[in-house]
Amino acid sequence: MALKFEVLKKQGKSRLGKLHTKHGTIDTPAFMPVGTCGTVKAMMPESVAATGAQILLGNTYHLMLRPGADLVEKMGGLHKFMNWDKPILTDSGGFQVMSLTGLRKLTEEGVTFSSHVDGKKFFLSPEESMKIQHKLDSNITMCLDECVKLPAPYETVKKSMEMSMRWAKRSKEAFVDREGYGIFGIQQGGDYQDLRQISADKLKEIGFDGYAIGGLAVGEGQEVMFKVLDYAPGMLPEDKPRYLMGVGRPDDIVGAVLRGVDMFDCVMPTRSGRTAQAFTKYGPVNIRNARHREDNRPLEAECDCPLCRNYTRAYIHHLQKCNEVLAIMLLTWHNIRYYQRLMQGLRKAIAEEKLEEFAARFYENQAKGDIEPL
Amino acid sequence: MALKFEVLKKQGKSRLGKLHTKHGTIDTPAFMPVGTCGTVKAMMPESVAATGAQILLGNTYHLMLRPGADLVEKMGGLHKFMNWDKPILTDSGGFQVMSLTGLRKLTEEGVTFSSHVDGKKFFLSPEESMKIQHKLDSNITMCLDECVKLPAPYETVKKSMEMSMRWAKRSKEAFVDREGYGIFGIQQGGDYQDLRQISADKLKEIGFDGYAIGGLAVGEGQEVMFKVLDYAPGMLPEDKPRYLMGVGRPDDIVGAVLRGVDMFDCVMPTRSGRTAQAFTKYGPVNIRNARHREDNRPLEAECDCPLCRNYTRAYIHHLQKCNEVLAIMLLTWHNIRYYQRLMQGLRKAIAEEKLEEFAARFYENQAKGDIEPL
Repeated sequence: MALKFEVLKKQGKSRLGKLHTKHGTIDTPAFMPVGTCGTVKAMMPESVAATGAQILLGNTYHLMLRPGADLVEKMGGLHKFMNWDKPILTDSGGFQVMSLTGLRKLTEEGVTFSSHVDGKKFFLSPEESMKIQHKLDSNITMCLDECVKLPAPYETVKKSMEMSMRWAKRSKEAFVDREGYGIFGIQQGGDYQDLRQISADKLKEIGFDGYAIGGLAVGEGQEVMFKVLDYAPGMLPEDKPRYLMGVGRPDDIVGAVLRGVDMFDCVMPTRSGRTAQAFTKYGPVNIRNARHREDNRPLEAECDCPLCRNYTRAYIHHLQKCNEVLAIMLLTWHNIRYYQRLMQGLRKAIAEEKLEEFAARFYENQAKGDIEPL
Repeated sequence: MALKFEVLKKQGKSRLGKLHTKHGTIDTPAFMPVGTCGTVKAMMPESVAATGAQILLGNTYHLMLRPGADLVEKMGGLHKFMNWDKPILTDSGGFQVMSLTGLRKLTEEGVTFSSHVDGKKFFLSPEESMKIQHKLDSNITMCLDECVKLPAPYETVKKSMEMSMRWAKRSKEAFVDREGYGIFGIQQGGDYQDLRQISADKLKEIGFDGYAIGGLAVGEGQEVMFKVLDYAPGMLPEDKPRYLMGVGRPDDIVGAVLRGVDMFDCVMPTRSGRTAQAFTKYGPVNIRNARHREDNRPLEAECDCPLCRNYTRAYIHHLQKCNEVLAIMLLTWHNIRYYQRLMQGLRKAIAEEKLEEFAARFYENQAKGDIEPL
């Protein structure tokens, strides 16, 4: 296999690990900020690295539309194009294409869709997705799959999962193996335990460098998601990384790490940074709220990001009210740093076998809510 | 006087100088990026400092509206509020208030106006402007003046200039003198040489730490502006800095330095950064232009800003097409750095007594236009 994964330590179902790629090593459990169009929105890549992020996620759908995989390849690959020399994982494009209601046509062969930008027609198949991700020079390529919104009837989920498994096989066959690069399979099966097992078995039979748990965070709510995570990660190989796609809120992540997940991605920290929401030890804070207007305290006293080190809540509130770009820049930075601090805390807790205490304290603090107004 | 200014060297009418303030020294000729609402748009203050900028301009009008001078004072002044520990110059608010057509009422006492944000009524007089700039903790306070759009009849310009001179006297009287802080008078008189002389004499009689040339860059065009600059700076004291307000394009600045001006401010580099326009050695470049789509060259080979060091034209073009915030961040940084490099070049040329050669080469390069497409 072309990606090396080490499990350094285990506590309960949780694992402390290291995933080695051509562009560097990722400490797991890991959170991957999302760089949709070849940029983590409102962040310099060196700032993303400064938060502690060791890997980014790039979106195949967005990049194949603009600027196009051929151009990225011509420019030396996505790392060079976007000035990020650390690992990159790319999704398959499937999830976003499937979300284009009315603009797509799905067959066994693949999916035909129209660009949301200019209406231009595109075709995406397992083979095509592999080709694109190869051109992007992605360290971790994801299989093309279909993803069903939950809740959904058993037969619907089953049929979709079965096609995803055929696509997984085609993806693996089309993937070009290289040292330091790898491909992840994606488990489907919705919230049906037997389907999750069939899917996991099929993926193991094909063989992958890592295994994603797909089809969650698609409307089922945290309770159902945790119910699935109570069994789904255990169906996947012990010696490979497990990646929960599109998750999530800080409390989702803590719950998923407790259940044996190693990798995460989500637009939550970046998107929230553009809508005035900040994540903190004591839960989310909307900095637009008038109570911050004259508050000369930092957003979060313990945080070491530029926002918390150099500015008051009053200043960020002011920037927000004036729709200043710097508000977005600082809040995005803070949120990504918050997520990385959370992952660092989780890793340290597993290393010290104190994960349960860490999680208990985390949930307790989150429930407290933001500090009292001055 | 509370601000110390040294003229280190002269070549022709041009001067190399140092202006000392409580928050640091400014090498002149100097360009001040504009930080309208307590932030240089799309820039971290440490990045602004990294471009070589040694002083920022803050807008009294915008800051008195939001967040209000009292709040800034309560937060420890503008330097602390916005995390910029270098010098700050504030305008008087007059220019922006005068531009609020229909929303203002001007008398000898001052001007009543309605906020463009929420319609709330405000009053600005020389005394009020001094009070606000003091609360902001501005190192260089500007007199409140009235500014007439050119071309304008002699009698209009004369009447306005005379009131501005009465306001200059009231400004000086209301200004609270402190070590490392100072106040600049503003010469008016439009493009009438005798009025400029009367204005300069009046200001010298009152006595200021520096002298601005006001009422230019208000629609008169470069030719008229240079005609005025052929005589206006020479009417002002030799031993004080001369500041041309709201100017300008790179070629305006070079022409004004040749005519004896020491300080400049303009929204040009920052505003252009938000509209895809980049300044380069060979003139302006619109990065949105399709010819950059596959161009793997840096925007400007000789520039040391992050945009030029780390990215291709193709990448910036891509960011622009996707309306990514990073495009604005990088272009703004480049443009501010361009302006600072220009000022560094001008200062070096004066130091080496090669200003005429520098200017000739500058105009020659600008006329060449951007490099050929690949």
